[in-house]
Amino acid sequence: MNRQDCEALDRADPLAHKRQAFSIPDGLVYLDGNSLGVLPAHVPERLRQVAEMQWGRDLISSWNLHGWVDLPRVVGNRIARLIGAPPDSVIAGDTISVNLFKLLGAAAKLSPARRVILSDSGNFPSDLYVAQGLRDLLEDGYELRVVAPEEVEGAIDESLLLIMLTEVDYRTARRHDMAALTRAAHAKGALTIWDLAHSAGALPVDLAGTGADFAVGCSYKYLNGGPGAPAFLYVRPALQDLVQPPLAGWFGHEAPFAFDLDYRPAPGILRNQCGTQPILSLAALDAALDVWEDVDMAALRAKSEALCGLFIALAEQRCSAFGVRLAGPRDMAARGSHVSLHHAEGYAVMQALIAARVIGDFRAPDMMRFGFTPLYTRFTDVWDAVDRMHDILAGRGWDDERFRARKAVT
Amino acid sequence: MNRQDCEALDRADPLAHKRQAFSIPDGLVYLDGNSLGVLPAHVPERLRQVAEMQWGRDLISSWNLHGWVDLPRVVGNRIARLIGAPPDSVIAGDTISVNLFKLLGAAAKLSPARRVILSDSGNFPSDLYVAQGLRDLLEDGYELRVVAPEEVEGAIDESLLLIMLTEVDYRTARRHDMAALTRAAHAKGALTIWDLAHSAGALPVDLAGTGADFAVGCSYKYLNGGPGAPAFLYVRPALQDLVQPPLAGWFGHEAPFAFDLDYRPAPGILRNQCGTQPILSLAALDAALDVWEDVDMAALRAKSEALCGLFIALAEQRCSAFGVRLAGPRDMAARGSHVSLHHAEGYAVMQALIAARVIGDFRAPDMMRFGFTPLYTRFTDVWDAVDRMHDILAGRGWDDERFRARKAVT
Repeated sequence: MNRQDCEALDRADPLAHKRQAFSIPDGLVYLDGNSLGVLPAHVPERLRQVAEMQWGRDLISSWNLHGWVDLPRVVGNRIARLIGAPPDSVIAGDTISVNLFKLLGAAAKLSPARRVILSDSGNFPSDLYVAQGLRDLLEDGYELRVVAPEEVEGAIDESLLLIMLTEVDYRTARRHDMAALTRAAHAKGALTIWDLAHSAGALPVDLAGTGADFAVGCSYKYLNGGPGAPAFLYVRPALQDLVQPPLAGWFGHEAPFAFDLDYRPAPGILRNQCGTQPILSLAALDAALDVWEDVDMAALRAKSEALCGLFIALAEQRCSAFGVRLAGPRDMAARGSHVSLHHAEGYAVMQALIAARVIGDFRAPDMMRFGFTPLYTRFTDVWDAVDRMHDILAGRGWDDERFRARKAVT
Repeated sequence: MNRQDCEALDRADPLAHKRQAFSIPDGLVYLDGNSLGVLPAHVPERLRQVAEMQWGRDLISSWNLHGWVDLPRVVGNRIARLIGAPPDSVIAGDTISVNLFKLLGAAAKLSPARRVILSDSGNFPSDLYVAQGLRDLLEDGYELRVVAPEEVEGAIDESLLLIMLTEVDYRTARRHDMAALTRAAHAKGALTIWDLAHSAGALPVDLAGTGADFAVGCSYKYLNGGPGAPAFLYVRPALQDLVQPPLAGWFGHEAPFAFDLDYRPAPGILRNQCGTQPILSLAALDAALDVWEDVDMAALRAKSEALCGLFIALAEQRCSAFGVRLAGPRDMAARGSHVSLHHAEGYAVMQALIAARVIGDFRAPDMMRFGFTPLYTRFTDVWDAVDRMHDILAGRGWDDERFRARKAVT
């Protein structure tokens, strides 16, 4: 395998044309789309239109004229297609944390006799914080039980209110079996909440098929919705009219413009809305989703596996002699779309990589993390990232002659 | 009083130059800035820079390089000056409803022995919904007690956990006496939460001076932050380190990048942050606040009173014969910066006004609502609004010869 082989893979890539839809700085190997996705090229113009033609010109009438009032539902439906959710089961808005709180609170009302929330130590910590916040607010016997990821299935019993898991581990990319764990939870009468932060837009998700009860996710990673773009929330259709939202708000009211003093939840998914959403950010996300309209999720997954597999193979071949070691499972079916590598000097190596225009990030205690976003990452990016990492580890640094020669041409 | 007199008032207005900072459609009399403020002219360019130069070019490094991580605090501090709050007592983010929930939940923990939330029927309904949502989540004797606005002071007793009031009534503009009601609540050991939705940027607020414990507010009305722009939240400094946020999130953690599995609240106001904020919308708000840098709040209030006073006088003089009747108090000291008029055909008259390019809105059952935003509303706007309302009420409609003649020149 050499760089020419990677160039051939890029030429044969059925998703290669998608890269043109994005503004990516020249010469940058951006492998941090699992933290912040890149800018879709048409978004600045869409933002200008929304600011000048909608907000500026049509002002308050834009809520109806330009569909602002429906945007959380419209965007939710566009995301639904990417995560295997039926129409009108996803709503966009707020943040993962706020949406998680809504669902945890709603679940507590659905099963008032159960008090234990099961999660794992591979979950993103803020999901645990949200559960801790609810537990401390409710008191009354509520408990957050945190086990190791591989111990989740065995810890499911009839005491559980729910299991709350992130499908793909933000560090190791280890992927939970959503279908199996949902079945196991349901068999014990427990509900399931899935965090799709590292799944949505990274791999095919089948919320309907797995029977998951609830899900949340963000749109600023693989969906490229922009920094802090609004999150989303899913409720299984059969539960939608049973859910009593703890964050009862105007946009979730059955008749907001009746200005009733009493809350009456809207039918269906809409009741999970709370306050007024940030329209500029939501419109940017809506625009960003245009890129996804014709994306085949199976092709996306195939490319993700190929990129990750190539990275793992090259990194092990060229860098294991320098102490680099794969984090998470080797089996691609049990992984998401990023790869983390343990290394004792991981922080320093990542700093050197960033200086060499290879952007990944670092996760304590010792993991260099690289995200592979199938819509715009090239096989040559994978080659270049490993090549520069090798040079750094071999002590040649990023400013050695070979690198400077290459830099001059990119 | 005639239109020429209003032109003279505009020429003498010390805030007149501020209108140039905004993009306002030609010929439009926009009196709905209390619902959605107009576009500050420089915001589209700022948005372009944030999208292209920050998100697009500097990508993930923008969180530090361009201060995204501090933006909620920076924007909060800029708003603090406008509402009489000391530095680092205001944080921007989320929505009014979500922020209200945070504060209600925190208050419940501060005074666990008390269970009654007092509010009034003039509050914006969604504030009541949020309290109902918390009540129904906690059960356990929590109660929302809603009285008429004029009965609030008499209803304050030692059973109260807190009073939760919107300072300026969204319909009638009736203004509560924040200082007096806060004193009365404190005398009975109750906390106070103030909603400044129709106060911030509309009139001087003195959170520190009144001793208010908590406040929330929005930035898309008088502050012109854009549709659904992030809200804000205030906590009295003495309470900040006692608050236990029910929405415990990553951005409110003492050390987010330690990725601890346990939540430990950050010191001070920062703990009231939860998830990742919508940076495009927050950056637009930050830019919008530039306009406020040199605004004297006493001058703002003087112009607000003059605009509202003129509107009331002209509307009563020219339109009371057609059944128009002022809503809310006549005393300007007891009012905010909008004016509502009762009229049996209020909905139809407002539709005709909108067709005549005078933008206000309608609030059930019979109120035409007009917002006067001192930074860009002119005295001639007041004249034109009443003039067209008079014509509509007099049955001459908006397309009569006089109106068309005027339309031709604007």
